[in-house]
Amino acid sequence: MGSDSDLPVMKEAAEILDKFGIGYELTIVSAHRTPKRLYEYAKNAKSRGIEVIIAGAGGAAHLPGMVASITELPVIGVPVKTSKLNGLDSLLSIVQMPGGVPVATVAINGAKNAGILAAQIIGIKNEEIQNRVKEYKEELEKSVLTKAEKLEEIGYKDYLNE
Amino acid sequence: MGSDSDLPVMKEAAEILDKFGIGYELTIVSAHRTPKRLYEYAKNAKSRGIEVIIAGAGGAAHLPGMVASITELPVIGVPVKTSKLNGLDSLLSIVQMPGGVPVATVAINGAKNAGILAAQIIGIKNEEIQNRVKEYKEELEKSVLTKAEKLEEIGYKDYLNE
Amino acid sequence: MGSDSDLPVMKEAAEILDKFGIGYELTIVSAHRTPKRLYEYAKNAKSRGIEVIIAGAGGAAHLPGMVASITELPVIGVPVKTSKLNGLDSLLSIVQMPGGVPVATVAINGAKNAGILAAQIIGIKNEEIQNRVKEYKEELEKSVLTKAEKLEEIGYKDYLNE
Amino acid sequence: MGSDSDLPVMKEAAEILDKFGIGYELTIVSAHRTPKRLYEYAKNAKSRGIEVIIAGAGGAAHLPGMVASITELPVIGVPVKTSKLNGLDSLLSIVQMPGGVPVATVAINGAKNAGILAAQIIGIKNEEIQNRVKEYKEELEKSVLTKAEKLEEIGYKDYLNE
Amino acid sequence: MGSDSDLPVMKEAAEILDKFGIGYELTIVSAHRTPKRLYEYAKNAKSRGIEVIIAGAGGAAHLPGMVASITELPVIGVPVKTSKLNGLDSLLSIVQMPGGVPVATVAINGAKNAGILAAQIIGIKNEEIQNRVKEYKEELEKSVLTKAEKLEEIGYKDYLNE
Amino acid sequence: MGSDSDLPVMKEAAEILDKFGIGYELTIVSAHRTPKRLYEYAKNAKSRGIEVIIAGAGGAAHLPGMVASITELPVIGVPVKTSKLNGLDSLLSIVQMPGGVPVATVAINGAKNAGILAAQIIGIKNEEIQNRVKEYKEELEKSVLTKAEKLEEIGYKDYLNE
Amino acid sequence: MGSDSDLPVMKEAAEILDKFGIGYELTIVSAHRTPKRLYEYAKNAKSRGIEVIIAGAGGAAHLPGMVASITELPVIGVPVKTSKLNGLDSLLSIVQMPGGVPVATVAINGAKNAGILAAQIIGIKNEEIQNRVKEYKEELEKSVLTKAEKLEEIGYKDYLNE
Amino acid sequence: MGSDSDLPVMKEAAEILDKFGIGYELTIVSAHRTPKRLYEYAKNAKSRGIEVIIAGAGGAAHLPGMVASITELPVIGVPVKTSKLNGLDSLLSIVQMPGGVPVATVAINGAKNAGILAAQIIGIKNEEIQNRVKEYKEELEKSVLTKAEKLEEIGYKDYLNE
Repeated sequence: MGSDSDLPVMKEAAEILDKFGIGYELTIVSAHRTPKRLYEYAKNAKSRGIEVIIAGAGGAAHLPGMVASITELPVIGVPVKTSKLNGLDSLLSIVQMPGGVPVATVAINGAKNAGILAAQIIGIKNEEIQNRVKEYKEELEKSVLTKAEKLEEIGYKDYLNE
Repeated sequence: MGSDSDLPVMKEAAEILDKFGIGYELTIVSAHRTPKRLYEYAKNAKSRGIEVIIAGAGGAAHLPGMVASITELPVIGVPVKTSKLNGLDSLLSIVQMPGGVPVATVAINGAKNAGILAAQIIGIKNEEIQNRVKEYKEELEKSVLTKAEKLEEIGYKDYLNE
Repeated sequence: MGSDSDLPVMKEAAEILDKFGIGYELTIVSAHRTPKRLYEYAKNAKSRGIEVIIAGAGGAAHLPGMVASITELPVIGVPVKTSKLNGLDSLLSIVQMPGGVPVATVAINGAKNAGILAAQIIGIKNEEIQNRVKEYKEELEKSVLTKAEKLEEIGYKDYLNE
Repeated sequence: MGSDSDLPVMKEAAEILDKFGIGYELTIVSAHRTPKRLYEYAKNAKSRGIEVIIAGAGGAAHLPGMVASITELPVIGVPVKTSKLNGLDSLLSIVQMPGGVPVATVAINGAKNAGILAAQIIGIKNEEIQNRVKEYKEELEKSVLTKAEKLEEIGYKDYLNE
Repeated sequence: MGSDSDLPVMKEAAEILDKFGIGYELTIVSAHRTPKRLYEYAKNAKSRGIEVIIAGAGGAAHLPGMVASITELPVIGVPVKTSKLNGLDSLLSIVQMPGGVPVATVAINGAKNAGILAAQIIGIKNEEIQNRVKEYKEELEKSVLTKAEKLEEIGYKDYLNE
Repeated sequence: MGSDSDLPVMKEAAEILDKFGIGYELTIVSAHRTPKRLYEYAKNAKSRGIEVIIAGAGGAAHLPGMVASITELPVIGVPVKTSKLNGLDSLLSIVQMPGGVPVATVAINGAKNAGILAAQIIGIKNEEIQNRVKEYKEELEKSVLTKAEKLEEIGYKDYLNE
Repeated sequence: MGSDSDLPVMKEAAEILDKFGIGYELTIVSAHRTPKRLYEYAKNAKSRGIEVIIAGAGGAAHLPGMVASITELPVIGVPVKTSKLNGLDSLLSIVQMPGGVPVATVAINGAKNAGILAAQIIGIKNEEIQNRVKEYKEELEKSVLTKAEKLEEIGYKDYLNE
Repeated sequence: MGSDSDLPVMKEAAEILDKFGIGYELTIVSAHRTPKRLYEYAKNAKSRGIEVIIAGAGGAAHLPGMVASITELPVIGVPVKTSKLNGLDSLLSIVQMPGGVPVATVAINGAKNAGILAAQIIGIKNEEIQNRVKEYKEELEKSVLTKAEKLEEIGYKDYLNE
């Protein structure tokens, strides 16, 4: 991530990777304050065994795109919500990349989905991870079905009062 | 893609996959006009050997998200530019997915980048493809360097007149 | 609705249907987390005697459009306000449907109006309901007239102090 | 519609109603230039046997909302694209109605969908119309399947050259 | 104004008119809930001696434009801030009027300025009012100059601590 | 107006003032290129007998607001459409004035309406002008009624073919 | 700045100039409430020895552009966040200047960056200031590196708990 | 600039620098396609005698911000208009920089103003350049005054016909 102020958002990516049993390193690389570190980090990522990079940033969010410009690995970008333009600036700064250098962009503050997407990507070579993604989706489904059942049973008034 | 009117945009994904030597199938699945086909298509994609899905759609663009809701494969979404809201509607409809169901969104009309992203994803299990992505990026770099050299040599007036 | 987090908004539709004496079922169907349930629900709605469907969702809000793609019944969409883009994403994801598959979209968080619209639709075959809509509009009018009268009588300072 | 300049857009509603065999009257009622006519028109619509009203307008588009304020019939609003703000002004002016007075809003320039929605609404009391809507949706589906088949058969290059 | 919920905003117009010694009536006329009252009110405004009308409304804000469509008096529109789209919907609904029917639009929640504008308009036939507007502007200027002097004198730290 | 490039838009104000028989002067005053002239012009406007000022500008459109800051006369602002942001920048730069200094803003490119608004303002002290505004509105009404009649008579197909 | 309500934002420019040891004067000049003062201030800035002007304003933010129109000095504009449109209005009012009169615009509420930019500008003639800017950037870098090290050392959970 | 497709826009900066007699180098440095070159270029700019850097880019426009992150020189950013989002993406990507790393942003496609701003910056150490800026502004003023005079003389109809 580009700043430790992004950590409350970006930790959701870590949590979901923990859940899927995927190893990761989590650190701060600022495109604007540590450009050299950015360059080194992205350049060496592959040789250090990294397979997917998740980069989150806000405002004029250049981190994901700059990482993507340096590495051949897939890069997932998380637009962090800003207090001024609600993250629309972050979103456009990350997603509107020029031809040749894609960033796989998820929703504003969508760090959890960035983690899931990383798992899906790793899943194409690791069947166990892929199965965990599948199970995760089934859990989601069950959780909604349980809620729906409960809502139908007790009615919306009681549901809201709980 | 969701409609054959998206083909002039989406063919760029096919072209780049051809360039990378990645096999693909290209077809039309409309979330809104063929919901059953959408369901079957996404459900069976994995068992048919597909590894990554690229889905492009415009306006209230539901195809990428609906495919992502059904399959455990990574799904790349291409927001197609619309004549009314310039693709801002397509972009928000694709990227703002709820927690649990990511779509790897690229730029408006970014079909070429969708193809490159697919190659990067496949590249994490296929070193040959990964090398081709790397070479592609080197080509891009060289192409810019050549242009820069020429521009510096002949000046901007002659450059523009050519 | 797509999630139980939408219930505080969507309950206003239930309340107004209660007021009009129109029977309804209220449940959770997530386009992204329970796509199969979505398909079954929309497919069987008509044969189960449902006449109008109200679907509310936020962000990349695909529920109303997907329901509309499967059923021949009229579908009313409620864009739920989101914390990031204030519901502009929800609105565009719901209203910008392609030719052939309309969603009758109401205002952001306009669940109450969705209920009234449902009553107006049912009213074209049920005169009693139509009369209740008419009476409801007359009540609204009276309520405004009473307020206007009071405001003119006591002045804006006292009116605000009450 | 609010102006004859909206006719090239709004005629698509007429064409689809013709296709469904639904009688209609098509005329110009300007909220801003003929406010009295607006009032009379909306007031008498029900007694003249009208069941659904489709109103299209652009810019500060007040026609649909004002009609909805006067009649108890369901009102469908079509935001017409404008040359300045692309119809975002029309959309917000039509959809963001206050509690109590819904307008069933369709996409920018979505007159065709307004016609289909009207048919779906009438369809809840007229099974024949409802069946035509159903058939229409099946036609749409078939048309997409045929295109998909052709695209898969001849490939995207030949498809685009035709 | 269109609703008594707009009163906390619109009262600023009343306050400034009080300050300028301009008589006014302040009431509620809802375009959507009391369309008939709207028509009567706007139709009779001139004959009742009214010279300028200030109309405030939020969301799909039709009141100012509808009043302007019925009367030949100048109409000032105040877009009221909304909780969903921050008043952008109100602003566009009020300002984007079609050719022939202007609304003199002020800033979002700009009720105070609506009052000043009304005074400026009345001022072209009433020199006393015009002079009061002039004095008011001079007061504004003095107030800023006093603040500037103070800020320069005590420095920004002390200024903020007061 | 701020630039002669605004003339094709702003001439519509002149045309309508000609129609209403209202004298005017039409010139170029650039807030940014001729700030001194701006100051002199606005300062002396009243003493030169001017009663209402219409100011049109595009982009960071400061002319209307700056004129309003200097004169006690009512100022009408016309946001001129820009090639980049379609006039949204012009609109916000003109309408969002701070408390104390209103600009009566009309629609993007709404120079015609600026002329009508000026006539309405002058009309409060000049009954003849006010009557011409009233007649103008009646003409508008008649013109719509004639079109509506014709449309109903010949049908939309023939109407469009003419 | 245009108003003392902008001071909590604009003081960050003063703080950073203090840090760089750059003298400055900080005062209030309102484009709309003290247009004459604006003119005098900008006209005399250079002769009073000022080298760079920082101007912050919100809403229809005309101060930076008007100052730039009067002086030949470089002018830095700070769009102040507004409660209604989040500063998008301020940003567009400041940045979209016409050809010939640039304003060096920084981020919404970016007063700190305005101070740094002023230091960079002064730095091209004052090596000491330039060196301080360089050191400041190195400090920023170090601060990020320290945080990154700590985060990697103690993990995100402990980092967040501190 | 980031791509030779930006040249038709960016050449206006070159033209104005030619006019002011300021030496410059004009080349292509792509943040995304030549990240290493970007780093080298920005790192060495100062030691090569460059005093101000103008960087133009479109879409997810990272070039100006990345250059600013590496050099202590002032960096001027030009958001280039894009075919999809009209340059709003470019503008937000350039202007919304985090604290510590300013980019002096000009209008969308404002390359000419970037050149003038560069001259103003250099002007604080080079009186001759500063005088040329002053003369340039006087020329602009004269040009507007001449047009205004002509318009007043021949009237708007003849003016438009020329």
